[in-house]
Amino acid sequence: MWMTRLGRRALPALKPSSSVPAFHPLRPCWKPGQGSGPPGSGLTSVQLRGQQTLGSASLPLTRHAVRFVRAQHEDRLVEVEWEDGGQSLYPFTWLRDNCQCPLCTLESAQARKLLMADLDVNTGLDVVEVTNDNKVSIMWPDQHTSVFDAEWLKKRCFSSAARRAFQEELFLNERYYWDSTLRIPTADFQEILHDDKAALAWLLALRRVGVVYLKGAPAQPGQVAKLAERIGYLRLTFYGHTWQVQDKPMANNVAYTSGKCSFHTDYPALHFTPGVQFLHCINQAAVGGESTLVDGFHMAAKLKREDPEAFRTLTTLGIDFTDTGTDYCDFMLQAKQRIIDVDAEGQPLRVNYNNATRDSVLDLPVHQVQPFYRALRAFVDLMDRPENVVSYRMEPGDIVTFDNWRLLHGRAGFLSDPQKLRHLEGAYLDWDEVMSRLRILRGSVQHDE
Amino acid sequence: MWMTRLGRRALPALKPSSSVPAFHPLRPCWKPGQGSGPPGSGLTSVQLRGQQTLGSASLPLTRHAVRFVRAQHEDRLVEVEWEDGGQSLYPFTWLRDNCQCPLCTLESAQARKLLMADLDVNTGLDVVEVTNDNKVSIMWPDQHTSVFDAEWLKKRCFSSAARRAFQEELFLNERYYWDSTLRIPTADFQEILHDDKAALAWLLALRRVGVVYLKGAPAQPGQVAKLAERIGYLRLTFYGHTWQVQDKPMANNVAYTSGKCSFHTDYPALHFTPGVQFLHCINQAAVGGESTLVDGFHMAAKLKREDPEAFRTLTTLGIDFTDTGTDYCDFMLQAKQRIIDVDAEGQPLRVNYNNATRDSVLDLPVHQVQPFYRALRAFVDLMDRPENVVSYRMEPGDIVTFDNWRLLHGRAGFLSDPQKLRHLEGAYLDWDEVMSRLRILRGSVQHDE
Repeated sequence: MWMTRLGRRALPALKPSSSVPAFHPLRPCWKPGQGSGPPGSGLTSVQLRGQQTLGSASLPLTRHAVRFVRAQHEDRLVEVEWEDGGQSLYPFTWLRDNCQCPLCTLESAQARKLLMADLDVNTGLDVVEVTNDNKVSIMWPDQHTSVFDAEWLKKRCFSSAARRAFQEELFLNERYYWDSTLRIPTADFQEILHDDKAALAWLLALRRVGVVYLKGAPAQPGQVAKLAERIGYLRLTFYGHTWQVQDKPMANNVAYTSGKCSFHTDYPALHFTPGVQFLHCINQAAVGGESTLVDGFHMAAKLKREDPEAFRTLTTLGIDFTDTGTDYCDFMLQAKQRIIDVDAEGQPLRVNYNNATRDSVLDLPVHQVQPFYRALRAFVDLMDRPENVVSYRMEPGDIVTFDNWRLLHGRAGFLSDPQKLRHLEGAYLDWDEVMSRLRILRGSVQHDE
Repeated sequence: MWMTRLGRRALPALKPSSSVPAFHPLRPCWKPGQGSGPPGSGLTSVQLRGQQTLGSASLPLTRHAVRFVRAQHEDRLVEVEWEDGGQSLYPFTWLRDNCQCPLCTLESAQARKLLMADLDVNTGLDVVEVTNDNKVSIMWPDQHTSVFDAEWLKKRCFSSAARRAFQEELFLNERYYWDSTLRIPTADFQEILHDDKAALAWLLALRRVGVVYLKGAPAQPGQVAKLAERIGYLRLTFYGHTWQVQDKPMANNVAYTSGKCSFHTDYPALHFTPGVQFLHCINQAAVGGESTLVDGFHMAAKLKREDPEAFRTLTTLGIDFTDTGTDYCDFMLQAKQRIIDVDAEGQPLRVNYNNATRDSVLDLPVHQVQPFYRALRAFVDLMDRPENVVSYRMEPGDIVTFDNWRLLHGRAGFLSDPQKLRHLEGAYLDWDEVMSRLRILRGSVQHDE
């Protein structure tokens, strides 16, 4: 899982606001190496760990030059000393494995042709030197030659600081934790569709904050599909390519009634729950139907502090979820999930919880049943505390886009009017596709500057 | 992950055969409680752990009746004694949580309406009794009444034996490990499309063995899509809804050349790699292009025995994969994977390995680099041993369907003829969708018998 290496931490919300709904206009803020904006410049420039802005996602574009290289034959390492004074070590095997020549790399696919069976994992090295154009050239014992660009090498330095920085650039795992004082970042639907900077700012805030509110979409079906196309493609599920949240007779899902939905993530009955969710308001109810959000990662961190035993229980026990019915086609899903999924360092990766589809099948020894209920209730009570909840009311043309791995969402019950049904259209995407578009946009926006 | 609870083990292959390719006709073998077939009846009836046939996936359909019930108020448990002599214990909280009445359950969705916030996780119990129609009826302190079907309760018994059996019925985690002596289960493409028993036998063998070979498909594009529709829907990726494996100019993937492909799983640059893969041969090369398969779970188990240090390395280190290019649309993927992903008990869940897309970015401290290469090479060498490899040559109209989480597949290089290009069409599905169809087919086939 991609959030393994980097920790997240809670930060105080900027500009607390008591108004509900509270939205905050997004400003693109991608610039590499840029510091945080002026105080009070809003969520999109809040400092994360005092190093990076919310929008910033690239390393500074300093050029690096090699001062000298030498081989440490005993340890089978190439030592590179940089003009700026730093030093990097590269294992022989890694260098041979990543030779960039056309025999070893398929340039058109940027992929490795060299087979593992053909790699000498105990290779020696004959000559290493700096070329006239400041590249590192290596001749191997079989006379094969590899040439490495200085910048390419510098970026792949094995020091923990360099690796941490590059991993953060690739995966953007630093998150901004929030509570009820959050002013939800907002953006214009049309701008996001047509302007790359706006689209990039949207996806960066979606990643860091977990939620971005879009205004100005037509109040007609088809808008979430357009938004998905802006990224790549949406994720089809048994509820269809997109799905209509309405009060339906013989509902195949509790969301398709007029009842209250307590905090949940969508689709824990799939082992790989959808990463990102879009909900577009086409019609709102006259009475009721308000929306709520809570930051599940923040709540998991709070639970760990306040009730470590409950946290341990929810991060270790495998809980069954189930979903049976017919929609896009007939389905009979079963999945086993930890309600709070964490990485090897105990950092939250994903919350998997929907009380409606939590199975009556509970695969626990009888003595663990009561501790499980106690822990789950503690987590739910924490999420329901007013100081943790953001509430808002969607109006036709609004779209909420959010991280379904991190946030839990809910809805108040509403008065159903058959003449004018409350109607939201929803769609799912996965984080891999969203992050792919984010990286491409970052590259193209940087290139245009 | 769904394979958490149950172990897998290697079994000797039945009827070893030296002929290559070696296929074995599939026979439907789903019958609940059925023993293994006669000796030598083939893979589809091989005994797993001496208890279950390859095809069998259900508990025996014995009817259970309640002899008496009583409340153990101190431990807050309901004790049920069964007519057949067994005894089960059910926690009060679990019973209240799973009340099946229309106030607590949305019948049309088979989903829980009762909110966690409304559940008293310390509930007492006023009265528990057996009704005239042998159901268990409970009156709670607030006078709410819950009635439970005896069979429903029996199936959800919290004993470890009952839970193990039910989990196996739900997830089919027992696997049949194999080596080069495998005779690949085969089936008829048309039969699978039109006959539910044949389709069920196909999916059961796909789950247990990891590979099923289909004969008799038209040698035209569109067949893998039909097969996916038989299950539900295919998984769209950046390579398209289906994808064409051909020798292409400016290939965006090493598979789209005429070169050898060493053993790999597809798409480790996606965090959630595709669970199931279909490859349909439309044209074969005149020279070369033979296919190979290896059982990655079996190899992981062997590695654990033969080289525990390498196993530990590959099951703990996070390795970066990358894929950049344009196909369905432009993409820039990055993922972090353990090459052998295991559950909390150390059982393999998924192999994630493609040497072509293994990133030059290696997020390890320098002292772990050489141990990583040593471990990976040990795993690759193990997979390449002839005694572990199944080889076959696809002919037009053949489709190989296999578990992409478990098997690694490869291909010999071939002589590319521009007049008659070697052409395979591929498609992906996920295990959740495949298992959903399997459960539905199992139910309908049982119902028809």
